[in-house]
Amino acid sequence: MIIVPEKEIAALMTRSAAFEAVEKVFASMASGSAYNFPVIREAIGHADALYGFKSGFDRAALNLGLKSGGYWPGNAAKGITNHQSTIFLFDADTGKCRAIVGGNLLTALRTAAAAAVSVAHLARQDAKVLGIIGAGHQASYQLRAVAEQRGFEKIVAWNRSPEKLDGLRDVAAELGLPFESVTLDELGAQSDVIVTITSSFDPILRAAQVRPGTHIACMGTDTKGKQEVDNALVGAANVFTDERAQSISIGECQHAIADRTIQEADITELGAVINGDHPGRGSDVEITLFDGTGVGLQDLAVASSVVDLAVEKGVALEVEF
Amino acid sequence: MIIVPEKEIAALMTRSAAFEAVEKVFASMASGSAYNFPVIREAIGHADALYGFKSGFDRAALNLGLKSGGYWPGNAAKGITNHQSTIFLFDADTGKCRAIVGGNLLTALRTAAAAAVSVAHLARQDAKVLGIIGAGHQASYQLRAVAEQRGFEKIVAWNRSPEKLDGLRDVAAELGLPFESVTLDELGAQSDVIVTITSSFDPILRAAQVRPGTHIACMGTDTKGKQEVDNALVGAANVFTDERAQSISIGECQHAIADRTIQEADITELGAVINGDHPGRGSDVEITLFDGTGVGLQDLAVASSVVDLAVEKGVALEVEF
Repeated sequence: MIIVPEKEIAALMTRSAAFEAVEKVFASMASGSAYNFPVIREAIGHADALYGFKSGFDRAALNLGLKSGGYWPGNAAKGITNHQSTIFLFDADTGKCRAIVGGNLLTALRTAAAAAVSVAHLARQDAKVLGIIGAGHQASYQLRAVAEQRGFEKIVAWNRSPEKLDGLRDVAAELGLPFESVTLDELGAQSDVIVTITSSFDPILRAAQVRPGTHIACMGTDTKGKQEVDNALVGAANVFTDERAQSISIGECQHAIADRTIQEADITELGAVINGDHPGRGSDVEITLFDGTGVGLQDLAVASSVVDLAVEKGVALEVEF
Repeated sequence: MIIVPEKEIAALMTRSAAFEAVEKVFASMASGSAYNFPVIREAIGHADALYGFKSGFDRAALNLGLKSGGYWPGNAAKGITNHQSTIFLFDADTGKCRAIVGGNLLTALRTAAAAAVSVAHLARQDAKVLGIIGAGHQASYQLRAVAEQRGFEKIVAWNRSPEKLDGLRDVAAELGLPFESVTLDELGAQSDVIVTITSSFDPILRAAQVRPGTHIACMGTDTKGKQEVDNALVGAANVFTDERAQSISIGECQHAIADRTIQEADITELGAVINGDHPGRGSDVEITLFDGTGVGLQDLAVASSVVDLAVEKGVALEVEF
């Protein structure tokens, strides 16, 4: 059994490896050779924690297993991350546990990679301004991953508490890009690509604020009740997602589906675009929206990739199990 | 993170530790301080494998986690066990993965322990003859665990292929007990306690074959469609189970519930007897039946117990994770 501890991941995993892994597994999902199992998510009634599993099987890559962990709100006070997860890979030929991989950084990387894959396949080629909504832990991963997909010349950002935007400002500086803290109206009026990465339960961005031709990656909504953009914006957009079943149940599309602004058939899995089975963006004035819900197969894909890298670089721990 | 490899379990875990762990968690389940999460079970479309998870949380013992693995029918040809499983324990206070434990032998021990706990609490004190139906891998574990619960003087056994009973005969000899291969009629007429441990899809044992005062532990049925005893026998018995929800969906009671021989309210969780909230056996002539479906919390309980033993004896591997 191979073990790749959390502390090794940063030196092993690259954004491009995460991009490749996520793009490939989205394609496998759309072609039917990979599928996610039902998600388990439990409020366990201890330490206010949410605990559960995301799992699946990719028949093409032979990635089988799960990510387990959750959200422990009291962790920060103990000096550890509130989101804790571990990824377990199983040998698809024997059912033996094959690898155990720290899942905290990989979760951030695979989520950012999903937005980046959506931008690569759906944003206008001439996109110049990138807008970020949200300034939490995940936002800087989003900025780094998405920024490399187009020749962006400027970053604009909005957060409920604008003073928390300094982290994003630093990343933009590192990338050599000008950065501006703006209102939502200004953000919509300037941006060619927008990433929403909040844990909001009310729509933040509205259809009237977004200009034609924008690509929006909604990356924050992963639970019943959460919402980042209004239904009119979803209704006005050409809508894509990682997995349709999650999009309509716990993703950004849950609300537009519930009030019949859109129907399930209006949502295209991004993998179909990657596979060439769907043309993707229809025109330069169309708004495209990617509902990134986060699936177990993404976790397995990046974990499998990191195991290969760890073995190659000789840093994988091997335990006789 | 603590690792207890499969090969260490045999030297660490005892039948009495498994009995204690399972009895305790059954009690916690009945009192509401422990609960199982939904079971995931997937025919993955590769290697004819069934893969999935059983999981749960015991608030009293702070055992949180899952058993993952499944059934790989092609393994035997490769010299490894068809049933493969690994148990993962999580720290309930932080969500970090705390221990990884080989689950193959533990699954056999916890299943046998469940039958033993049922015999301890439900069989007549003066039981003399133990009947075993089935002769697969799990049967000898059942015999060893159940035999120590009463002053048995004789073992009788039935299997579809009687020539496969030699394994049980050897265990009986080890225990110093006479052993007889019998017909089902003879088995029912002689036995005070009966364990069924088959993967049958049709009833084997019938009400007319069982005498008053018998305790029956049905341990084989864990899937929709499987069945070891006829509905008349379930209907004639005072019925107990590990978890009612599993009993009526994938356990032995599924059929008697479906044809309304019994109702959900007729089934008592064994933990209620352990806790003293239910009297258990009503009389010396009553037939008691335990539907052992196998729950994730049993796996967590024995894994937690084995982690404590491994640490105590200094054989736990510690990995900085």
